[in-house]
Amino acid sequence: MQKHDPHLESYIKSSRSQYEDLLAQMVEIPSISSDPAHAADVRKMGAAATRILKNFGAEARMVETSGYPAVSGGWFVGNHYPTVTIYNHLDVQPADEPEWRHSPFSFQKEADRYRGRGTTDDKGPALTALFAARYAIEEKLHLNIRFLWELEEEIGSPNFVEALRQQALVPRSDSVLVSDTIWVAKQRPAIPCGLRGLLSARLTLQTGSTDVHSGLTGGGARNPLAELCEVANACVDAQSGDVKIPGFYDKVVKPTQDELKEFLASGFQVNRFKQAYQLRSLRTDNRAELLKRIWAAPTFEIHGLTGGHTGPGVKTVVPASGELKVSMRLVPNQRPDKILTLLRRHVKDINPNVRVVSDGKLEPFRGLSTGPYAEALLRSVQAGFGKVPVMVREGGSIGAIDHLDRTWNAPILFMGLSLPEHGYHAPNEYFDWGQASGGIRTFVHYFRELSQMGRQSAMKKKPKRSAR
Amino acid sequence: MQKHDPHLESYIKSSRSQYEDLLAQMVEIPSISSDPAHAADVRKMGAAATRILKNFGAEARMVETSGYPAVSGGWFVGNHYPTVTIYNHLDVQPADEPEWRHSPFSFQKEADRYRGRGTTDDKGPALTALFAARYAIEEKLHLNIRFLWELEEEIGSPNFVEALRQQALVPRSDSVLVSDTIWVAKQRPAIPCGLRGLLSARLTLQTGSTDVHSGLTGGGARNPLAELCEVANACVDAQSGDVKIPGFYDKVVKPTQDELKEFLASGFQVNRFKQAYQLRSLRTDNRAELLKRIWAAPTFEIHGLTGGHTGPGVKTVVPASGELKVSMRLVPNQRPDKILTLLRRHVKDINPNVRVVSDGKLEPFRGLSTGPYAEALLRSVQAGFGKVPVMVREGGSIGAIDHLDRTWNAPILFMGLSLPEHGYHAPNEYFDWGQASGGIRTFVHYFRELSQMGRQSAMKKKPKRSAR
Repeated sequence: MQKHDPHLESYIKSSRSQYEDLLAQMVEIPSISSDPAHAADVRKMGAAATRILKNFGAEARMVETSGYPAVSGGWFVGNHYPTVTIYNHLDVQPADEPEWRHSPFSFQKEADRYRGRGTTDDKGPALTALFAARYAIEEKLHLNIRFLWELEEEIGSPNFVEALRQQALVPRSDSVLVSDTIWVAKQRPAIPCGLRGLLSARLTLQTGSTDVHSGLTGGGARNPLAELCEVANACVDAQSGDVKIPGFYDKVVKPTQDELKEFLASGFQVNRFKQAYQLRSLRTDNRAELLKRIWAAPTFEIHGLTGGHTGPGVKTVVPASGELKVSMRLVPNQRPDKILTLLRRHVKDINPNVRVVSDGKLEPFRGLSTGPYAEALLRSVQAGFGKVPVMVREGGSIGAIDHLDRTWNAPILFMGLSLPEHGYHAPNEYFDWGQASGGIRTFVHYFRELSQMGRQSAMKKKPKRSAR
Repeated sequence: MQKHDPHLESYIKSSRSQYEDLLAQMVEIPSISSDPAHAADVRKMGAAATRILKNFGAEARMVETSGYPAVSGGWFVGNHYPTVTIYNHLDVQPADEPEWRHSPFSFQKEADRYRGRGTTDDKGPALTALFAARYAIEEKLHLNIRFLWELEEEIGSPNFVEALRQQALVPRSDSVLVSDTIWVAKQRPAIPCGLRGLLSARLTLQTGSTDVHSGLTGGGARNPLAELCEVANACVDAQSGDVKIPGFYDKVVKPTQDELKEFLASGFQVNRFKQAYQLRSLRTDNRAELLKRIWAAPTFEIHGLTGGHTGPGVKTVVPASGELKVSMRLVPNQRPDKILTLLRRHVKDINPNVRVVSDGKLEPFRGLSTGPYAEALLRSVQAGFGKVPVMVREGGSIGAIDHLDRTWNAPILFMGLSLPEHGYHAPNEYFDWGQASGGIRTFVHYFRELSQMGRQSAMKKKPKRSAR
């Protein structure tokens, strides 16, 4: 990494104990957004974060929504300077796993490692950006730096858009940096520049009013579960995963050869992937093929089938109804609305009695991989970690990104600091000083680049998604 | 009905109040075998039944098993006389339905109707046979009459065979009469002479150790629910119900034209069937086709699919495992063991990772529709109810019949007294004096016929099932 900046290096070194103190304070608030029993803790986290921002000299406040608030704050330096917003979230996953070796909400420092729920997802990265921002402000960069810290990310950002709509409290930025993603391997920084979208649906079929005896009715009565299995089968090839809905692939933009080369350079290993997710076997063990499938190809998943008997053993009923829970991950340029129409049409062709109930959707997101922002970020990561990052994609969907993109229509870039071994959503989660210090360095460089770029009038409106 | 037997008619008339008293006593014991909270009531029912038999002058005792006992008793008249055993059960279904208009275990007499859980299934018919037997014994018929009253029928007769094996307490009979079936319509007595068999199985597939995030793994990870839907689809045509397992239909004996004529003469109505089971639509509305399917054709049902998310909404997980719960109703001459082999082979062809776990089996049963016993029974029903009965089949399977057939290898005949409107397994269940009095008349005639037949040496061993 680029250590020829002794003033920055000295700032980073001298900040470490304060960083660790603040991370400990944040981790010890069990801000589990999915658990109503922790509602007070989630709000306490918001208040603590507001206080931390103020203590750093920023203005800050909680922005109320129908759910949990978001924390919004930062430094306003000048009207003619560009503004960047750093997005993180301060709510955390539950920590019920029996594998925890210590209390997940008591912060543990083990040499360079910081252990506890939320250290890497996403409190450690949030704090990293804050330390970098303070340095940039002290350096008097011509840049307004803002923070937007969500408290509902782990539950799918149901009310985030309400915070975004309060423009006086959450002003639009010229660009956004999202710091909530994971590198593919420690040895190679990874910048995701795409997220899959999502379309969830429930396929329901009712053929009776009550489960009936299969001896008395079987053969004459329709079996809604068998019919829903037929529909499932008509939507997806269970072996290959290929989606059979006519027109489903029409708008898919395949990854370019350059993108595939970057994917392969990411350090991704098939066996490590299998181990990480405890998968016994995969649809393919070919590295390039697997990467294409999990990052850049759409899917159709069966998540569950309700109806009939789901207790132990077999109960010989003909079920009255069933509900097949499905979702599709979508890639550029698939549009959830269009895909929903295709799904409805196909299901109707197969079985006109099956109702398709839409259960939520997120547009696929194609981030910037070229242009001044992407290039600035690449240089900054290289400066921060001493390695050229690879451009990858994320197979998941981040609800907040979709909202930010629609509301602000500003360039959104991703700079995550988490490593696969950190245990995202897993027991014994940790973050480490290597990623934190490299992160501060990276963010400072990126802030410098942004201040030098000035307000990119050409980038105020980014090109339409469909043109990418 | 044949009322030119004034002595019998006077016995029936004079028995009515005792019949009602005893039925009330029996109904008011909530002998719900499926509910462990009623274990004491089930045993109390056995003790009460034993007492009733003794009060009628029969010898009687409870025959213990690993579960609930069976009640065995009767009259021994002479060594050279034939013996008939009447099978009934005295355990009942739960009665939790909110539609009950009075307490299900308080006996209600409404003119000719006797209302309460267990009145028609199967306490009323059991008592009917007992009143007929007392008359036959008083008539000094050359016939030994025995009763075998089970207390585990509603839970699938798991320990019944243990009672049958105690030959000193439950001696083999020359023939058996089972009184636990329903006519198809009130206006036409129905004698079932076939039961479908059953093969239950769980098809399990595990592809991971824990449900994983479909964004992070979807496309690469296998989806066990999609694969099990594929297997389901390869086993059964969801629309027609046709079973796709190769060889499945090879041994099926189709109903004869004569049988089909009898089916059609049973009074079966498609709309009444739909109403009775609250089915919105059927696989066919053709009467003959429907009867063939529910009585004389095998099936493949999906009863449930576990795995993944079955709570409200959609949760975007790739499930780690799934279990498809299936069963097949079988008809003569399909053998459950052979069908299980065919199923295993077919599933292995479709998906070698799917495990097939057998969950229980019952042979299909083809009863007697010709020969001296069947003819005697036909004449008796005509004498009892004044109408020629039709020979039908039952689509269900009665576990006890399979055990009786294997253990005794004696002719088994069916003479049920329940009507569709009685509400078998339904709220506001009732029995009525018309069926009880006609039943006493029928049984007395049948006992007379049996005593005249003597011991049918030719029928001691009935022909092998496979020859039928």
